Amino acid sequence: MLEAFFVLGEKNAGFDILYHNMKHGQIATKELAEFVRERAAIEETYSKSMSKLAKIASNGSPLGTFAPMWDVFRVSSDKLALCHLELMRKMNDLIRDINKYNEEQVKIHRKTKEEVIGTLESVQSLQVQNSHLQKAREGYHSKCVELERLRKEGVPQKELEKAELKSKKAAESFAGSIEKFNRAGRDFEQKMSESAQKFQDIEEAHLRQMKLLIKAYSHSIEDTHVQVGQVHEEFKQNVENIGIENLIQKFTDQKGTGKERPGPVGFEEYLSPLVSENSKKSRAKAFRIPGLGKRDKEPDSM
Amino acid sequence: MLEAFFVLGEKNAGFDILYHNMKHGQIATKELAEFVRERAAIEETYSKSMSKLAKIASNGSPLGTFAPMWDVFRVSSDKLALCHLELMRKMNDLIRDINKYNEEQVKIHRKTKEEVIGTLESVQSLQVQNSHLQKAREGYHSKCVELERLRKEGVPQKELEKAELKSKKAAESFAGSIEKFNRAGRDFEQKMSESAQKFQDIEEAHLRQMKLLIKAYSHSIEDTHVQVGQVHEEFKQNVENIGIENLIQKFTDQKGTGKERPGPVGFEEYLSPLVSENSKKSRAKAFRIPGLGKRDKEPDSM
Repeated sequence: MLEAFFVLGEKNAGFDILYHNMKHGQIATKELAEFVRERAAIEETYSKSMSKLAKIASNGSPLGTFAPMWDVFRVSSDKLALCHLELMRKMNDLIRDINKYNEEQVKIHRKTKEEVIGTLESVQSLQVQNSHLQKAREGYHSKCVELERLRKEGVPQKELEKAELKSKKAAESFAGSIEKFNRAGRDFEQKMSESAQKFQDIEEAHLRQMKLLIKAYSHSIEDTHVQVGQVHEEFKQNVENIGIENLIQKFTDQKGTGKERPGPVGFEEYLSPLVSENSKKSRAKAFRIPGLGKRDKEPDSM
Repeated sequence: MLEAFFVLGEKNAGFDILYHNMKHGQIATKELAEFVRERAAIEETYSKSMSKLAKIASNGSPLGTFAPMWDVFRVSSDKLALCHLELMRKMNDLIRDINKYNEEQVKIHRKTKEEVIGTLESVQSLQVQNSHLQKAREGYHSKCVELERLRKEGVPQKELEKAELKSKKAAESFAGSIEKFNRAGRDFEQKMSESAQKFQDIEEAHLRQMKLLIKAYSHSIEDTHVQVGQVHEEFKQNVENIGIENLIQKFTDQKGTGKERPGPVGFEEYLSPLVSENSKKSRAKAFRIPGLGKRDKEPDSM
């Protein structure tokens, strides 16, 4: 790609295209920062929404057999919130890197502009010489036209010689302009060649840097994507692990709706109060049927 | 897990725990729908934000060597927007499934409540018999205490016989209450056993259905996660594929800042106008140096 840039050709806009293109490099850097800033904001919003979702899960009814599942939802949503919060942080770090690069870019461009002043002068000099060249060419040609006309009209020899002298002088002036123009051209070519290379180096370094920044962007997103995948896998596993039997067991443990059934009640012979307290207690227990006690509410309609 | 539910045991709250637990099943279904609705809203917001991000990318400056990269950002962001929009749609479909299940659930619970009315009556009957049993037991024991006291006091035989008769009658009444209580107990046990099994079947079917709905939820999220991964991979590949040389080449093609250099200008002999127009044009062209024309602006400071 050496010498990809040079300023001539059918539709060239010249030195200033390359000169101004540096500015577009700075614009691109700022736009990339803006893009990443927007992405960071999106991830922050997503993270907050996931925290809200975790809150909804934690507000799930603690009653009923399904209750323990809400914890699985809550944990998963909280973890997703963290993943996206981390991505937001990484995006913010990246914005700092982009801004830092932008500052370096400004310095490099300022330095480069000083370095290419010579080329700018050479461009202007070539423009001046070009204009002289055009005039000299027109002058020479108009003298030739005049000489040809006089020859056709058959004017006196003296007048013809005068016109020939004028034509010769115009030819010399034209040749001199060509000489000067070509000298300016060689100077321009050498300086422009150096500047074009400089501009190209700047562009290549710029694009290399931008691609590095984009790589950091996509690495961060990729890391988060892997983490999010792990959170999903965990969620699936947790749902799988909480079996239906498990949930029903937890419920019966919690509510005490166990398997014990009431045995039949037998006749209880009266015993004198001399009998020990302990044996009295154990007998009394046989009559208590907790499922039917006063503290149990009557069923009502839902 | 057969007979996981029965209503007796140390801390039982009885029939009504199982009866009311159906209501918690409906609450869980509604809460799951609410959770998924929130998730759908989150994905919709994320999708819209990604479209906005794509817009930012498409507004990236079309000037400069970096310009073609914006298309890579735009395409990727647009695709991410689509992925999350699809997830939102799947969540909305899931909400419909959850609501449909909730309607079925309401019907099943209504039917079940009718079916367990007999058990409810049996519970009430057992409570009544239990209360009679307690009274009969107390009556019998108080008569025994009275008889014992009279014996100790050595009251006349006639009075003692009267008390013995009372005690015997109280014992018969107590035995009758036991008989009735045990009959009610057997009826209760049979009906409660059926109802407990019914409640357990309902719980198991409910949890099975809820787990199916959760599976649909996590499958949709997983699908989207895979798609998002593909979009990221594509983005990375596209960035990789647009080489720095490529970008510079595109720029030089677009701007025409090619490699062509100005050749030296030579002396141009004047030719008579008789020479064809075509050859005149081609000569004139040799003097045009487009990079230095009037239409090119002077470089200005950034």
